[in-house]
Amino acid sequence: MNSTAKQTSVAKTMDAIGTAARNAATELARSTVTSRDAALQFASAVILERCDKIMAANNKDIISARKKGLSAAMLDRLALDKERIESMANGLLAIAAIPDPLGKILAEWSRPNGLDIARISVPLGVIGIIYESRPNVTADAAGLCLKSGNAVILRGGSESYNSSFAIYQCLIEGLQHAKIDAAAIQMVPTTNRSAVGYLLSSMNQFLDVVVPRGGKSLIERVRAEARVPVIGHLEGICHVYLHESADTEMAKQITVNAKLRRTGICGAAESLLIDAAAAERLVPEICAALTDRGCEVRGDATVQRLYEGSIAATEEDWSTEYLDSIISVRVVPDIHAATKHIASYGSGHTECIVAEDNEAAEIFFADVDSAILLHNASTQFADGGEFGMGAEIGIATDRIHARGPVGAEQLTSYKYLVRGAGQTRPG
Amino acid sequence: MNSTAKQTSVAKTMDAIGTAARNAATELARSTVTSRDAALQFASAVILERCDKIMAANNKDIISARKKGLSAAMLDRLALDKERIESMANGLLAIAAIPDPLGKILAEWSRPNGLDIARISVPLGVIGIIYESRPNVTADAAGLCLKSGNAVILRGGSESYNSSFAIYQCLIEGLQHAKIDAAAIQMVPTTNRSAVGYLLSSMNQFLDVVVPRGGKSLIERVRAEARVPVIGHLEGICHVYLHESADTEMAKQITVNAKLRRTGICGAAESLLIDAAAAERLVPEICAALTDRGCEVRGDATVQRLYEGSIAATEEDWSTEYLDSIISVRVVPDIHAATKHIASYGSGHTECIVAEDNEAAEIFFADVDSAILLHNASTQFADGGEFGMGAEIGIATDRIHARGPVGAEQLTSYKYLVRGAGQTRPG
Repeated sequence: MNSTAKQTSVAKTMDAIGTAARNAATELARSTVTSRDAALQFASAVILERCDKIMAANNKDIISARKKGLSAAMLDRLALDKERIESMANGLLAIAAIPDPLGKILAEWSRPNGLDIARISVPLGVIGIIYESRPNVTADAAGLCLKSGNAVILRGGSESYNSSFAIYQCLIEGLQHAKIDAAAIQMVPTTNRSAVGYLLSSMNQFLDVVVPRGGKSLIERVRAEARVPVIGHLEGICHVYLHESADTEMAKQITVNAKLRRTGICGAAESLLIDAAAAERLVPEICAALTDRGCEVRGDATVQRLYEGSIAATEEDWSTEYLDSIISVRVVPDIHAATKHIASYGSGHTECIVAEDNEAAEIFFADVDSAILLHNASTQFADGGEFGMGAEIGIATDRIHARGPVGAEQLTSYKYLVRGAGQTRPG
Repeated sequence: MNSTAKQTSVAKTMDAIGTAARNAATELARSTVTSRDAALQFASAVILERCDKIMAANNKDIISARKKGLSAAMLDRLALDKERIESMANGLLAIAAIPDPLGKILAEWSRPNGLDIARISVPLGVIGIIYESRPNVTADAAGLCLKSGNAVILRGGSESYNSSFAIYQCLIEGLQHAKIDAAAIQMVPTTNRSAVGYLLSSMNQFLDVVVPRGGKSLIERVRAEARVPVIGHLEGICHVYLHESADTEMAKQITVNAKLRRTGICGAAESLLIDAAAAERLVPEICAALTDRGCEVRGDATVQRLYEGSIAATEEDWSTEYLDSIISVRVVPDIHAATKHIASYGSGHTECIVAEDNEAAEIFFADVDSAILLHNASTQFADGGEFGMGAEIGIATDRIHARGPVGAEQLTSYKYLVRGAGQTRPG
């Protein structure tokens, strides 16, 4: 095919997917939670049953990804083993177990003229999910969309196509088992990159929202090209702030966990702020604990003076999301300097204060404007599963619609039902 | 100035506005509702006091708008009189009277690991409002943004610049009285159209959301150019559906009010659907009532047969927002045909069912997917004030973030506060 013919063919395929999704969404909006949960449970069982088949498909992807020279980190995200597949299947069961997010009365009130008004949760409609080569996102994202009554169009990274397709087939069997239109979950069949462009720019009439899940370059592309609303996820430059009242042992455990439990997730801490009044007590001990576990410490002048094992941080370090075993450490005069630092360099994702002084925690909660603020708990709790949402599509850093973990409840809209007795509007 | 110099100057002005708005937003997020309400009340009083001055400024706008040859409808929207100015001042008092939308605990729960999680409402941040030449929007929009702790950048239609500026000055006095940063409410000082383009495309770092308020072409421009989230308002192709169980007198009163109370608002009915089983009873009586009040009736074949005063509707009529004394009327076989018609031709704004049969109303509520559904009440109630929100910026027809009337509560986001006792995440 020449390039124009290719474009026409992409448009045809994508429009057909969009039309089918729209129809499925109408049906889903009227479906029962029992049938949606049954589909999730059945798909979970099929995934377990097909474990070997999914691993074989994944192996295909791994082989060609190695040939393409993908980085070790990317290969790790792409790889599936028995444990990861089981956790994916359990994720679907967890989603089935959460309460129905639809048909909830979010608010109700009466007006002096006798009108009764109720705000009721409804699905968003059709959701486009664009993600990188992480096959498990296929199950998580589709599961959350189905739970919340939305039709979904999935477009995963091309390196994970075989793995994602094998998982997608299990999901379809779940839908068929529950007699739900199979178009409720669709996968863009082409690995042609122009499909993404078409989805973002030309499918307004089919899509209600696009959710990108991936790195900075993906999110930026989606923002630039999207002609539909986006629920955005930006980087997580998360801070741990050790207040002068912090308990040394708790400060150590939280900092080590926040930074090192997993360094590649967006809720991993990237910067550590320590009150000057506690610097001599905390800097050597906490920094040594990090270094002992293989973390590079990049400190300001005070940190370098107090801890020999650190190297100098540059201005750039304060706004860098390492996603690696590196941390930037700064000593600050007080809590106000700490919140100011976070406002200047943070990304509004997740921040933690370690403090025995509850008043300090309340100041931190009031003054820091991030999606998630924690007092005496690790930033690695920034996760829909840990919040009790069953799973998450990601952590939204935008301020409109959803902020923080995006679970099934965040994938809903609402409508108003107004009950009258013949009222007309005067004037 | 040459064109490049002009662009640089627009960029400089707009960036300065953006920076000031960002700073004001940080301050506003920490402000008390008492001070924000005091600013609204004081501004309301200043508006009343300056009534003559505002009318003089409005007169300037009217004279130059006439010279430009603006339509009668546009001149009407632009014109201010004593009554309209009083209603604007009362609007600010109504906004001051609603409860504080900030700091509300939207949800709270505990996790098995002992973490206590709370979701708390916070301002969106900085809001850009782009509107046409309706000077009263200056007060309504700024009032709602202030109530909800947001900084606002206003960009009204150039034809209303003098009127809007006179109102804006009253608002600033309110801020000064309450000792709130005057940059909480800013007006784009230039009438240069490129300021809008710059606001939409180059101010991501300053703006959290843009709200366009106006006609289709404005909304479409905003959608196409915006690089920030948009809370969109599309047209209102609103339906009144008369179920076979409808009471004749109630059907007449609601239809006449929904269509004719004010024809130029987005909640005005544009299409009337009537059950076939009640067509002989309802079509002649309802259509005559409309015609008697100067409304043109465009009917399908059955309507034309039953009511001589109608002319033939074309396919285009079913999806036309007249905003005028014209209505399209169709006889439908049953409620399912009615909801299907609305799904095909409606804009998802507001629809009403008139029925004595409550079960029919519940089917209508479940099956129709619009922002506002009414049973036995006029579509003209689709209004933030009528919903008890004090005022509204508009009726959102998008499905994300806010749907239906956008009041102060809809101009908020939230953050999560997580309280722990040293928890770290396992695994």
